[in-house]
Amino acid sequence: MDNFTFYAPTYFAFGKDAEQQTGALVKRFGGTKVLIHYGGGSVVRSGLLARVEASLDAEGIAYVELGGVKPNPRSGLVYQGIDLCRQQNIDFVLAVGGGSAIDSAKAIAAGAVYDGDFWDFYEGKLVDKALPIGTVLTIAAAGSEGSPDSVITKEEGMIKRGATGEAYRPRFSILNPALTQTLPPYQTACGITDIIAHLYERYLTNTKDVEVTDRMIEALILTMIHEGPRVIENPDNYEARANIMWAGMMAHNNSCGVGRTQDWTSHNVEHELSALYDCAHGAGLAVTMPAVFTYTMPHDVLRFAKIAVRVWGCQMDFEHPERTAREGIEALRRFLISIGMPANFADLGAREEDIEKLAHTCCYGSEYSDGKLYGFTTLEQKDVEAIYRLMI
Amino acid sequence: MDNFTFYAPTYFAFGKDAEQQTGALVKRFGGTKVLIHYGGGSVVRSGLLARVEASLDAEGIAYVELGGVKPNPRSGLVYQGIDLCRQQNIDFVLAVGGGSAIDSAKAIAAGAVYDGDFWDFYEGKLVDKALPIGTVLTIAAAGSEGSPDSVITKEEGMIKRGATGEAYRPRFSILNPALTQTLPPYQTACGITDIIAHLYERYLTNTKDVEVTDRMIEALILTMIHEGPRVIENPDNYEARANIMWAGMMAHNNSCGVGRTQDWTSHNVEHELSALYDCAHGAGLAVTMPAVFTYTMPHDVLRFAKIAVRVWGCQMDFEHPERTAREGIEALRRFLISIGMPANFADLGAREEDIEKLAHTCCYGSEYSDGKLYGFTTLEQKDVEAIYRLMI
Repeated sequence: MDNFTFYAPTYFAFGKDAEQQTGALVKRFGGTKVLIHYGGGSVVRSGLLARVEASLDAEGIAYVELGGVKPNPRSGLVYQGIDLCRQQNIDFVLAVGGGSAIDSAKAIAAGAVYDGDFWDFYEGKLVDKALPIGTVLTIAAAGSEGSPDSVITKEEGMIKRGATGEAYRPRFSILNPALTQTLPPYQTACGITDIIAHLYERYLTNTKDVEVTDRMIEALILTMIHEGPRVIENPDNYEARANIMWAGMMAHNNSCGVGRTQDWTSHNVEHELSALYDCAHGAGLAVTMPAVFTYTMPHDVLRFAKIAVRVWGCQMDFEHPERTAREGIEALRRFLISIGMPANFADLGAREEDIEKLAHTCCYGSEYSDGKLYGFTTLEQKDVEAIYRLMI
Repeated sequence: MDNFTFYAPTYFAFGKDAEQQTGALVKRFGGTKVLIHYGGGSVVRSGLLARVEASLDAEGIAYVELGGVKPNPRSGLVYQGIDLCRQQNIDFVLAVGGGSAIDSAKAIAAGAVYDGDFWDFYEGKLVDKALPIGTVLTIAAAGSEGSPDSVITKEEGMIKRGATGEAYRPRFSILNPALTQTLPPYQTACGITDIIAHLYERYLTNTKDVEVTDRMIEALILTMIHEGPRVIENPDNYEARANIMWAGMMAHNNSCGVGRTQDWTSHNVEHELSALYDCAHGAGLAVTMPAVFTYTMPHDVLRFAKIAVRVWGCQMDFEHPERTAREGIEALRRFLISIGMPANFADLGAREEDIEKLAHTCCYGSEYSDGKLYGFTTLEQKDVEAIYRLMI
């Protein structure tokens, strides 16, 4: 196991009506003037925004609103939020929504106390300072409610990039599974897929002897396999929603990813798809993961066989372990399709003729990139092109 | 799933030489004058104490020492530590050792800023204020390095009781698996048993539909079954030590116990044994757990069958699930004996003629107790006596 540090000081309030604690938690963590950041009309229509604001009112906490976050959140709104924070002397940023609202809120929180362009953080600068952040989560997916990460798309060139740093861990996150019950099956399935990707991408490691984190990852994927179909079948299933919500947080707060190399190839390869075609991130991952895993499997056949046996219940083929490895990848693909996810480029609205461009942006899109993707394997543009071709 | 809050803001520095970060971490978390609290001579002889003090010196942090913590830590030393903190204006308590040193340090940290008798917390008062606490862990077992709990034995009457509260979560914990390599196999096995108990006692729940935490608990027990024998066979196995150390923390920081009722019967029944006979807590648990589980199994046969199948690899007997449930308990018992743990009362030095007294103290020992143990099942003195008899 590699040396590591782990620090996840987010306060979680989990359960029915948990959003009523918003005001008390903002107060506890020092907020006096809040930017409430959210997406479209659903948090307004559902009455959630009004409940959150009533909770802030009850504690005498002032706030301003900034809505309009879109899936694959954009830099333009981040700049607006930063300006608003400065004009209004905001000292706490509260995201109400899913991963997009939270990631956008994080970027605003960092940019508001930074002299340069917030995009610097998305080009590799560590986020060491930000306004305190809180979240009221409405989609179990991104894990941003407990993670030190954020992903933003720069409109100029449609470049989608991640940033990270301790200052991005929310001070508190409110997880009420009932808030996710109104989520349509397709978006729910996208969330399930994203959570599974966060687990697979930690599982694909080159570090030996990491049984504890292997087992934890397997446990969380098994949970998703058990609860996913239940919630697709019955969106009102509070218990299944609750299990998925906690699994989604645990999948990405990194307690099951410590001390091991990780592989973010699927996320990186997918980001070009959702940036260019504006498809849902989870939908993109559903198409990307089987392709990436098929391509990289020969690098460590037994690791793929292990997850096939332990998670997908495949019988180990001791004479031909690669058959078991492949069987596991096929089981993942079938599972994702069974919950309503797309299977290929066409389903996503992606175009074969864009492959070279997609692969080039993926490998050379950042000014810091050297043309390679590092992780479980090291990939060059030709490899990434081959992976996209597996998605056709 | 029940509503819950979860807040585990401990900073973990994990890996080889991690103790060199002690000074920097005390500084980060505001300590200027430290009480270093430890047990016997091993942390002195191994040079660990000197390395910790060198790290504090390097940051210009003052400190005083208080050694002498014994397994099943006693109230007497806690009172001494409280006096010392007040006399010396200590503002940070640093435990160097295993669960005993940490639990004693926690009691001192709470008592030092409390006007009454610190024992109040061990009679049920919530710990809402304490000096900040840090730990340098030398035994993977108690999980106190990441938990809000502490257990102390009051010498008057040899009463062993636990206290809990947010203020008991360490600000930082340093986990260097290499520090545990010198631990003899017996103590190592005691630690493994304690960790397994923390997992079983969370598994035994009356809350339905908690798959995510069930799976996480199973994952951590599976890790102990895999790594335990490896480290007993070769105490120098750093990788096995590392897996056990992280599993031990995760087992007890409660991320796998949230939103569900838990069962602390084995711990409560065991506490009387280690209080009266001064046996190792883990050794006591090894004898206690199979007895408690055998007694309470009829309350939920399928829960015991579930852990038997998923963790111990038993084949489900669909016609007689109770056979599978029993088989799982026997597998646990055999595993514990295989790593060198005692099997019965005689091995522990416990006496049959004490059973009534043990059961009475267990049920009526605290002034707040009403004669019953609550958890997975509700037990009265006669039940506890019957459980002790199963250990003969």
